[in-house]
Amino acid sequence: MAIVLGENQYGKAENRLFRVYRDTERHSIRDLNVSSALRGRFEPAHNPGDQGEVVPTDTQKNTVFSFAEEHGVGALEEFGHALGNYFIEAHPSVKGARVEIEEYTWDRIQVDGAGHNHSFVRSGSGVRTTVVNMDGEGDQCTTHVVSGIKDLTIAKTTGSEFHGYRKDKYTTLAETSDRILATDLVAKWRYEQNDVDWDKSFESVKALLLQTFAQTHSYALQQSLYRMGEVVLEQHPEIAEIRFSAPNKHHFLYDLERFDVDNPGEVFHAADRPYGLIEATVQRDNASEAGSAWHGVPGFC
Amino acid sequence: MAIVLGENQYGKAENRLFRVYRDTERHSIRDLNVSSALRGRFEPAHNPGDQGEVVPTDTQKNTVFSFAEEHGVGALEEFGHALGNYFIEAHPSVKGARVEIEEYTWDRIQVDGAGHNHSFVRSGSGVRTTVVNMDGEGDQCTTHVVSGIKDLTIAKTTGSEFHGYRKDKYTTLAETSDRILATDLVAKWRYEQNDVDWDKSFESVKALLLQTFAQTHSYALQQSLYRMGEVVLEQHPEIAEIRFSAPNKHHFLYDLERFDVDNPGEVFHAADRPYGLIEATVQRDNASEAGSAWHGVPGFC
Amino acid sequence: MAIVLGENQYGKAENRLFRVYRDTERHSIRDLNVSSALRGRFEPAHNPGDQGEVVPTDTQKNTVFSFAEEHGVGALEEFGHALGNYFIEAHPSVKGARVEIEEYTWDRIQVDGAGHNHSFVRSGSGVRTTVVNMDGEGDQCTTHVVSGIKDLTIAKTTGSEFHGYRKDKYTTLAETSDRILATDLVAKWRYEQNDVDWDKSFESVKALLLQTFAQTHSYALQQSLYRMGEVVLEQHPEIAEIRFSAPNKHHFLYDLERFDVDNPGEVFHAADRPYGLIEATVQRDNASEAGSAWHGVPGFC
Amino acid sequence: MAIVLGENQYGKAENRLFRVYRDTERHSIRDLNVSSALRGRFEPAHNPGDQGEVVPTDTQKNTVFSFAEEHGVGALEEFGHALGNYFIEAHPSVKGARVEIEEYTWDRIQVDGAGHNHSFVRSGSGVRTTVVNMDGEGDQCTTHVVSGIKDLTIAKTTGSEFHGYRKDKYTTLAETSDRILATDLVAKWRYEQNDVDWDKSFESVKALLLQTFAQTHSYALQQSLYRMGEVVLEQHPEIAEIRFSAPNKHHFLYDLERFDVDNPGEVFHAADRPYGLIEATVQRDNASEAGSAWHGVPGFC
Repeated sequence: MAIVLGENQYGKAENRLFRVYRDTERHSIRDLNVSSALRGRFEPAHNPGDQGEVVPTDTQKNTVFSFAEEHGVGALEEFGHALGNYFIEAHPSVKGARVEIEEYTWDRIQVDGAGHNHSFVRSGSGVRTTVVNMDGEGDQCTTHVVSGIKDLTIAKTTGSEFHGYRKDKYTTLAETSDRILATDLVAKWRYEQNDVDWDKSFESVKALLLQTFAQTHSYALQQSLYRMGEVVLEQHPEIAEIRFSAPNKHHFLYDLERFDVDNPGEVFHAADRPYGLIEATVQRDNASEAGSAWHGVPGFC
Repeated sequence: MAIVLGENQYGKAENRLFRVYRDTERHSIRDLNVSSALRGRFEPAHNPGDQGEVVPTDTQKNTVFSFAEEHGVGALEEFGHALGNYFIEAHPSVKGARVEIEEYTWDRIQVDGAGHNHSFVRSGSGVRTTVVNMDGEGDQCTTHVVSGIKDLTIAKTTGSEFHGYRKDKYTTLAETSDRILATDLVAKWRYEQNDVDWDKSFESVKALLLQTFAQTHSYALQQSLYRMGEVVLEQHPEIAEIRFSAPNKHHFLYDLERFDVDNPGEVFHAADRPYGLIEATVQRDNASEAGSAWHGVPGFC
Repeated sequence: MAIVLGENQYGKAENRLFRVYRDTERHSIRDLNVSSALRGRFEPAHNPGDQGEVVPTDTQKNTVFSFAEEHGVGALEEFGHALGNYFIEAHPSVKGARVEIEEYTWDRIQVDGAGHNHSFVRSGSGVRTTVVNMDGEGDQCTTHVVSGIKDLTIAKTTGSEFHGYRKDKYTTLAETSDRILATDLVAKWRYEQNDVDWDKSFESVKALLLQTFAQTHSYALQQSLYRMGEVVLEQHPEIAEIRFSAPNKHHFLYDLERFDVDNPGEVFHAADRPYGLIEATVQRDNASEAGSAWHGVPGFC
Repeated sequence: MAIVLGENQYGKAENRLFRVYRDTERHSIRDLNVSSALRGRFEPAHNPGDQGEVVPTDTQKNTVFSFAEEHGVGALEEFGHALGNYFIEAHPSVKGARVEIEEYTWDRIQVDGAGHNHSFVRSGSGVRTTVVNMDGEGDQCTTHVVSGIKDLTIAKTTGSEFHGYRKDKYTTLAETSDRILATDLVAKWRYEQNDVDWDKSFESVKALLLQTFAQTHSYALQQSLYRMGEVVLEQHPEIAEIRFSAPNKHHFLYDLERFDVDNPGEVFHAADRPYGLIEATVQRDNASEAGSAWHGVPGFC
């Protein structure tokens, strides 16, 4: 029996990169959180401690910031691909890379009814994400892209039922044909291909998720999520599968009868913990193998 | 020398109240975080431990939720006033009350270009706040209202300078005539009177703060804040003073010269800590006394 | 009517200063979070925007780190005093200063039964805090010190009752003679004088708070806090007053009768929100005026 | 091409269970955060929305709390196993279960040199974790246990070097033979078997991790982690592999030369973001297949 190094990667996490485009008076911004990680021939770094093949995380950081100027920041997926490709091409020891990016969105501040040229306010409906995983060099390199959205807090105040479930001795939940359904949606979808109009695809998927959530009469969060995934796959052939992680954020009807007050579905306590947690994948039955696509995708790996 | 009880209050903090209006098919919601605190003749509760005059925090919670149905939730300030008034009127031991409320805002989900009737997505630009302080009973009762906004993240990518400051042996900061100015704004304003159209006042102040931030050519965050306060007071006679607490969220130009890359104000590192912290009050010179208005206003008391 | 600048201060917040003492092989560390703020003649900085008298927050940061080497880090209160004094003495525009410090504590890692010379593990029972407020120059300078502890999570599993409280139509809480009492204690005490053995005083107060919490049979969190404050004042003549902010972290007995299971005070749900919040001051009746002592003491100002 | 349901599970997350043992006057407590998730025949719940086979998350919650009384809370791993086994045995639709548990530790409050019978203070060095994954029924059921520790903040103030690494055009990091090494350690280890003295194994692994971190002269965080894993595997035959996720929490020497102040490795800025992130697995070369063991292990799956 021997003790050996198994899976490993290392990098610089959470580079808070703020990129301004100021070529005209009408500035625009990309506000990113970029994490890189490298995989490869790093046994000596671990044992006995020889760093000769190691590209320091500090260097990775410098590369991220310099690429933002040298190559600009287009779609997150392209920026991630450019970085991963560079690390693999430039360094023989690097055999794979993961680049994870979050984007925070900003709106222009309204002044006299028009968006200001260079003043912005953070908007809040969801954080765009991507994880680009690349493995192998040159022609042998396979690239996987999993993009998504997180922190998308949504609710519907009717059109949600929950009943007919299995009972046992620990069942105390009352069945209901009208409840509040609320979640902080995390959705991540794996692309089947890499020649995608990433920004357009993202905007469309986000809109479909919101719209389908709104339009689906719900018999369970599971069923809403499934329908949301189904609509995305129906309309986006470039997507192989979509995964959801969605807390069921309980809104409990407050018992006001005790005070002789009627509560016809109007006053709720929004609880913190515990919460339901629904995780589900919707996929094509002929989807390609996921390979390392979900490697290091937070919450889904 | 004796040891005595000094200032004290107690209550139920962070009641997460979700109020749905569903009188028609077009629902609307108020999503609140309500904290109550009572002041009064509570020496015996502390020493020797006699709770006979104490209104339990659990009862305060029930009252908050029941009032949301009995009286509805109008402007935060009115809801706070109704609660505070009730606690003082209903309980002889209660001589004062503080009600603090935060409101989280939601937009309707867009479906086919129109807002959905009962499906919502959390929006993100700032949390509305109020603290209502009431002291004394009946005709003797004085009411103070401090309303505000927090978590309003704003930035401008030019139109901000910082130079001409005092130097000493520890000065290393380079002067600049073009930097990024960014903050998570907290603003709280004290109302001079209580007959206010609260919702309208809030929306107007928020718009003025954003607009003035955008339009002010800045020589320091202090100066931007002062101008923002000045505009609010100029246009809102019902407001006696406005206080700001604003981190200077540093965006450091990333040094790319080391890699032979020019960085003409385009690539920045958005730093976490430390940050500048600017606190300032703008007020009328004939404003009324603040009294207990700022009592328990988080960050400003 | 004119619009004028009111109270204001500015500084560098949250300098994460890590100071190593390595004069011998047995190292020791002080792990601090230091925030400075200056008050004074800063009207021009706000309006019209003239920074000539402003000591930049960047300079304040440099000063904090350099003082950690030049003067070393002794008791937090001394370090805060040295910084505040310097800012006031060195800069004519600075008329007052606030220095706030948090300290995170570390234990030595145990190796073969002994503490290691230079390896440490963060310990968790509470964060030591201080706020030093100084106003005026030279002989006119008054100094206030408010020290404390926060994030001190404590619980007792019996010896806590709650009954005999006032009832009204919203009362539903059951009275109990045996409940769990738990809080995340925040305590801040104001020193009457400045010639104190600060470290010794802190350790003694912390021990008294813990011990008195344990030994007090509780009829309410208010009563426990009062007794804790009383004991501190009885044994610490250097302390003028002590203030508490203590959430009543509810542990609800889980109803297992529904499953024919007895629950004799053994299984609880530890709830998040809402929570009771008890704020109380215990003071000497002949204590000096607090002046600006509580200025900018988070949660108590 | 058809759209189908892929991997899925659902459950109740973050049940904050506080279990008191009060059989004698000397109480003891287990303070847990328990999350359950079930896998199985849940296609109908997703599409078309038939919940007939679904065990509601509310029922799972009730079961968790009732089991804490019915079966008591022994080692986390045993409690997780009992829950998972019950869900699979009691419900034909349930084919697999994951139970994740965190434990927060408390010390007795010291009174007159002795630990108090029923008063406790939260301690801070690390949170114990486990994830028990069970798949299949009866004799066919396989059980995987991955236990670990998180939030274990450790540092050494010397005995850490970093040099000899690969350079490129983006390299600016200075090599060093003496730096601070600090991390918030997350370690998770997979057990090879299920007849383990869980509490004893955990305490031993934790002690070995701390001790080996202290005693290893470090040439990189990778190398420290590898050695820590190696020692654990050498001494714990019941463990198949151990995985680490460890931020390299940078402590930057503060440049005081600019102020003519020497800084011989004494004053550091403890930075927040970005941070290095080192992920590594140390394993036996003859370890069993991991199967679903890492399914839903936060940060490692």
